[in-house]
Amino acid sequence: MIYADLTADKLNGLKARLQAELDGFKKQNLALDMSRGKPSTAQLDLSMPMLEQKLNFKPDKIDYRNYGLPEGIPEARRLFAELLEVDFDEVIVLDGSSLNIMFDTVARAMLFGTYEGATPWSKCKTKFICCVPGYDRHFGICEVFGIEMISVDMTLNGPDMDKVEKLVSEDESIKGIWCVPKFSNPDGTTYSDDTVRRFAALKPKAKDFRIFWDNAYCVHELYDGEVALLNIFDECKKLGSEDMVYEFASTSKITFSGAGISVFVTSKANIAYAKKIMFYQTIGPNKVNQYMHYSYLPTVEKLRAHMREEAAIIRPKFEALIGALAPLRKEGLVAFTEPKGGYFVSIMVQKGCAKRVVELAKEAGVKLTGAGATYPYGKDPNDSNIRLAPTLPPVDEIAKVADILAICIRLASVEKQLSLIEA
Amino acid sequence: MIYADLTADKLNGLKARLQAELDGFKKQNLALDMSRGKPSTAQLDLSMPMLEQKLNFKPDKIDYRNYGLPEGIPEARRLFAELLEVDFDEVIVLDGSSLNIMFDTVARAMLFGTYEGATPWSKCKTKFICCVPGYDRHFGICEVFGIEMISVDMTLNGPDMDKVEKLVSEDESIKGIWCVPKFSNPDGTTYSDDTVRRFAALKPKAKDFRIFWDNAYCVHELYDGEVALLNIFDECKKLGSEDMVYEFASTSKITFSGAGISVFVTSKANIAYAKKIMFYQTIGPNKVNQYMHYSYLPTVEKLRAHMREEAAIIRPKFEALIGALAPLRKEGLVAFTEPKGGYFVSIMVQKGCAKRVVELAKEAGVKLTGAGATYPYGKDPNDSNIRLAPTLPPVDEIAKVADILAICIRLASVEKQLSLIEA
Repeated sequence: MIYADLTADKLNGLKARLQAELDGFKKQNLALDMSRGKPSTAQLDLSMPMLEQKLNFKPDKIDYRNYGLPEGIPEARRLFAELLEVDFDEVIVLDGSSLNIMFDTVARAMLFGTYEGATPWSKCKTKFICCVPGYDRHFGICEVFGIEMISVDMTLNGPDMDKVEKLVSEDESIKGIWCVPKFSNPDGTTYSDDTVRRFAALKPKAKDFRIFWDNAYCVHELYDGEVALLNIFDECKKLGSEDMVYEFASTSKITFSGAGISVFVTSKANIAYAKKIMFYQTIGPNKVNQYMHYSYLPTVEKLRAHMREEAAIIRPKFEALIGALAPLRKEGLVAFTEPKGGYFVSIMVQKGCAKRVVELAKEAGVKLTGAGATYPYGKDPNDSNIRLAPTLPPVDEIAKVADILAICIRLASVEKQLSLIEA
Repeated sequence: MIYADLTADKLNGLKARLQAELDGFKKQNLALDMSRGKPSTAQLDLSMPMLEQKLNFKPDKIDYRNYGLPEGIPEARRLFAELLEVDFDEVIVLDGSSLNIMFDTVARAMLFGTYEGATPWSKCKTKFICCVPGYDRHFGICEVFGIEMISVDMTLNGPDMDKVEKLVSEDESIKGIWCVPKFSNPDGTTYSDDTVRRFAALKPKAKDFRIFWDNAYCVHELYDGEVALLNIFDECKKLGSEDMVYEFASTSKITFSGAGISVFVTSKANIAYAKKIMFYQTIGPNKVNQYMHYSYLPTVEKLRAHMREEAAIIRPKFEALIGALAPLRKEGLVAFTEPKGGYFVSIMVQKGCAKRVVELAKEAGVKLTGAGATYPYGKDPNDSNIRLAPTLPPVDEIAKVADILAICIRLASVEKQLSLIEA
């Protein structure tokens, strides 16, 4: 680390200079936001023709404007079955929020168990493994249901599978694990084939253990060409373990956020069990919206072409951010891998500096995701990870944010080094 | 009852003649359906202009195509606040299925209790009062959660309030009651002012008791002029009991079924509590769809005008059905009140005849709602109630269905009378 060998004098000089630079930005009264993984206006505009289509319903057959089809319209189920390489009968298509399907899936397990005759999770000790850094909304579901969270670190190939295998084989109270297998939130890591195979081959002590496979970024490549993720269901079917996996996806970052359609994929046995309870829960999803989506993006090919247009908007933002952070990486002030897709850049600053960086940025008018948000209970044990979300702001703002961020990281690192010298 | 004094010979002659009439219909291989409260194609077509609107979003303010606003868009909340005469802050607008809100509200109570610190219903004995005849989907929610159901009969003014008051004041395990206060399903009864006041004044032994006020047909008048339902929240607020009421409504029978928007209305304290948990459940409802609805029906006045067009389609169907059943009512073979709104005609045939009528109709190619469906556990103690749903078929089919139904009722009554003589 570039500041490691500096004297207190030099560090204090540096600190003053960095502080002055930051003060320069403060005077501009900026209000920049890189805190949330939201699509930009330009991205949303891409899907406007979807709303302008003329839809032809079939009153003589199944009228999608009327009640019925609680598992979603066949066209949408077929499309996602093809995209995710599973059987039609393994797909249910629901409303806009895949988080809602995940929450409801855990809620069902809490109240009814994960299969006929299983003990409801609310009636036994229940723990989940959380890959860290990870997605705060996953952790939130555990928190609200009182499910104890156990962290397992991410590696460049996915979660540390030695740890995962040991934990699930030894502890019967471990009932689930949260995964974002492709372009993981926030790291951007895609699980290796070996990782996926080890997931499929897990031998959990708990018979009702489930893998929550949140494939939120399944078609969210930043660059041309597909980043392959091994199909976990193919691997599971070889071993007969397909009841162990719940997969989720949605169009929230394909068309409109929260106004798209979401997908629940699992074994036929799990689908049948879920449907039995869901019959009591809802008269079915918004089929008009599903049909509108299907009509606009009727094939996997069209869907991928649409995502290339999205990528063309997003890519320069990622590149601007990564470009600005690259020198700091060289200087050892920050570590990160360059994501090939997804919505985030996840950086590791010096231990004990993440909160301070977020605080300094806030003072300069830049809102970042709260430090710690990527860990269960909001507690990053190293206070080191910061999730950056470059999709929402325009590209020229990204450059400015990146400049400010670089100053904040430097300043926090200098302060840290000074405190080490003083101690 | 017209057949009460006939001899067995006469009855047998009548039976043979009715059976022959029914056989005549059987030869026609009909496939008529009056089993489900679904809008007709003509009704659905009324809302097609909604899909053809040009929607202007506001990227500079809150963009409804993006994440945010878990409680729904302000325009829709304001509209329903005005329609249901409650405060803006007492309304949350969600997705297409109000059944989903009801299920989730019970699920939340099961897992978390109805207020901070309350015992979750899954951790105590929980019973619900069900007004009968009533809505099978309400009873289904109780059934799936293992909530014991206690039936209370409907009167012409709403449920028998003497019984309701006695039950809730004596039994701490009674945690809720299902109500359809306007054009009740299936009776079409609108609760009297006195009934609504007595609901607001309930003194339940269970502090966490809740009234599930499913106002599904709040604007579903069949005739010009509004059928008034006293606003329960006004009455509750006089007594400080507004935390006791959850109100639900939706546009499923206003625009498109299951593709509309639904509404949850309750006290500010209940809203705050629900939102705290819902934050973990969903990133929010489909705001594009909400905005589409609002743009098409932006005022209560326009909404009511739209409903008058709906009524013009539905009314002749109700009248055809009621006209065909009127002679049988005179003859004492069937009892019913003529609904002024809603989606059903509920008839009471001779005790022990409902199942037989539905069976006979089925043989003749007419599908009716299963006898018993309007009672908890599907068990009508008198086997007498049949719910008729005249909205879906075209009006000329209604006439045919009504003719067949009349024969089935006569035939079942004659058979019953014969069995009484034989016994």
